Amino acid sequence: MRDVAVIGIGMNKWGEAWNKSLEEIFVAAALDAIKDSGVDKVDSMYVGCMTSGLFNQQEHLASKLSDYSGLAPIPATRVESACASGGLAFKCGVLDVMSGSSEVVLVGGVEKMTDVGGDHATFALATAADQNYEVYQGVTFPGLYAMMARAHMDRYGTTSEQLAAVAVKNHKNGRLNPLAQFQTDITIDSVLNSVMIADPLHILDCSPISDGAAACIICSLEKAKEFSNKAIVKVSGFGHATDTIALHHRDDLTTLKAVSAATEKALAMAGKKHEDIDLIELHDCFTIAEIIVLESMGFYKPGSAGQATIAGETAKNGKLPVNTSGGLKSKGHPVGATGVAQIVEITKQLRNEAGDRQVDNVRIGLTQNMGGSGGSSIVNILEVL
Amino acid sequence: MRDVAVIGIGMNKWGEAWNKSLEEIFVAAALDAIKDSGVDKVDSMYVGCMTSGLFNQQEHLASKLSDYSGLAPIPATRVESACASGGLAFKCGVLDVMSGSSEVVLVGGVEKMTDVGGDHATFALATAADQNYEVYQGVTFPGLYAMMARAHMDRYGTTSEQLAAVAVKNHKNGRLNPLAQFQTDITIDSVLNSVMIADPLHILDCSPISDGAAACIICSLEKAKEFSNKAIVKVSGFGHATDTIALHHRDDLTTLKAVSAATEKALAMAGKKHEDIDLIELHDCFTIAEIIVLESMGFYKPGSAGQATIAGETAKNGKLPVNTSGGLKSKGHPVGATGVAQIVEITKQLRNEAGDRQVDNVRIGLTQNMGGSGGSSIVNILEVL
Repeated sequence: MRDVAVIGIGMNKWGEAWNKSLEEIFVAAALDAIKDSGVDKVDSMYVGCMTSGLFNQQEHLASKLSDYSGLAPIPATRVESACASGGLAFKCGVLDVMSGSSEVVLVGGVEKMTDVGGDHATFALATAADQNYEVYQGVTFPGLYAMMARAHMDRYGTTSEQLAAVAVKNHKNGRLNPLAQFQTDITIDSVLNSVMIADPLHILDCSPISDGAAACIICSLEKAKEFSNKAIVKVSGFGHATDTIALHHRDDLTTLKAVSAATEKALAMAGKKHEDIDLIELHDCFTIAEIIVLESMGFYKPGSAGQATIAGETAKNGKLPVNTSGGLKSKGHPVGATGVAQIVEITKQLRNEAGDRQVDNVRIGLTQNMGGSGGSSIVNILEVL
Repeated sequence: MRDVAVIGIGMNKWGEAWNKSLEEIFVAAALDAIKDSGVDKVDSMYVGCMTSGLFNQQEHLASKLSDYSGLAPIPATRVESACASGGLAFKCGVLDVMSGSSEVVLVGGVEKMTDVGGDHATFALATAADQNYEVYQGVTFPGLYAMMARAHMDRYGTTSEQLAAVAVKNHKNGRLNPLAQFQTDITIDSVLNSVMIADPLHILDCSPISDGAAACIICSLEKAKEFSNKAIVKVSGFGHATDTIALHHRDDLTTLKAVSAATEKALAMAGKKHEDIDLIELHDCFTIAEIIVLESMGFYKPGSAGQATIAGETAKNGKLPVNTSGGLKSKGHPVGATGVAQIVEITKQLRNEAGDRQVDNVRIGLTQNMGGSGGSSIVNILEVL
């Protein structure tokens, strides 16, 4: 069991890549990560992707991407856990290095979602829920998160303004991220006046449909300095947990047990406490998700994260910056890529390479990636040495 | 880096499970494996499945199956490498134990293929090939393997009778396997007189569309004896490699480079030579595959495996028994489950639990699982202690 470090990161602009294929956007990010790392050889690769089968009629994806990246015959593994596929691919890559089986591992995430119509995209994403007991009855993801939002409002008095404040903050951060899909400020009023998707969630409470990829290179901590002359970012801990896939099977819609369990494990493995974490990239697929995740992780008491957001505590210059990248809301949410992009952002911040959105004096960052309505979650803790 | 053992196996009858869901067939195999192992706790699970998205409109599969198996909140990871998904899930589980991150891991494979029409099944399976350069042009998997067969016939004089002999042998073995989809003998004449699917491959040269699951429990070798009172089966080595996903990008259609590379790595890791291997479960998705795989692995010289099959060398009582389970041809080929079922069969043989098809004095077995037309392959070597 050996320590692991992130030594390279790669990501290109996210958005609607009409003139590029899934393969092209993945390879661009992968080659950037390899170049950034300084390695001249990769031993193994992991690809997080939710559903290239339904979006692109392409399975056997890791084999295709090792081939198109010029990396075959290396072992290549595709990993899927719905929207947490990227975070899970990262964990699997870390296990590969920890096991001693591989020295240098490429972890990439990708999703090309815009090649199909909006109805089909909604259908493809809905396969992250229970097909038999949720999707077949007509529920979609905005609907599931709307139910969570309603329950949270009912129990804690959470307001639509508090939800909107999450989107406003993340757009403000995303405006400073040249790779973000949306680089425009929005206001609480514009969120509240935007079209209602699933009451109480307006369209500006929802992350978009996106094309994008992200990648990183990891290796054993002991070899990291041989390969890279940049600041070394250590993987201090990870946690991964599941919950019922169907929302209606849970005792409580206002908390996410998989998120709590994954966070607890990651902190224990890293030997850290909540107060040690300097910044967070988390899974704001909908604004309510950011609030419930902050509470489920234990950074805020139940019912208090909405007020904290309004108060600016999670802003870039707040006491606990959350989603400096712009989050899923503004950076975009190509579902399989999101978890890896969170690693990219935290690594940039820890290396002091985040440009206009750099947070001062950050040493330890946390990522939280979520599958479906919380049926799975992966938390990683990174630390600059 | 610690040694890993297989301590539990589970599998139910394969075939057309019209009255059962994907979840039901997976859970049955998983619970059988847990019961067989003697463990009372599982730390993590891996699920191999090629395309529950296209067959069952269900992604987020590992989360769903951890939930339906009663195992949530444990970490659950779905792994995909087309028809090699099961073998790859096994490798990922082995890495998890090797890394020290988990002690007891459930590895399962599943595919429920019959809930869609035949055309859709052919389309879903074709997504293991290059969508842009192969599938879009109209090629299907029987077509790809037919081209490999034609090239092999052209170069080495391989005959249709030799191909048929593979199917005849595997049906003869499958007749003795109560879990096999087909338990009927066939003859060389019946193969040659069966309907032509893609010249020179008749329908009896092809593995079927199947529903099925298989599972195993692995743990560290040091703990294996605490959990299990059965013969301990050690994972001595594994190899995993990729090749071009598209067949036309390869220099030579008569050999499979990913298979050669994976075999070489597995043998080196296990410290074994070809002559140490007592029996093999390999990926006979089409009869020509068994011949090319035996040659690519180095057990037979190029062009000689067809004659060896006719001569009975790979029969149950031959010098190198191949596919005693019945192989994909007779046991069935629920694609994501196949690689795990290979582990189940070798474990049964090494434990001397294979009933009527038991091979005498076997100590070391090898599994070979393949993705697509050879774009990926995983080889595992198991040894009874």
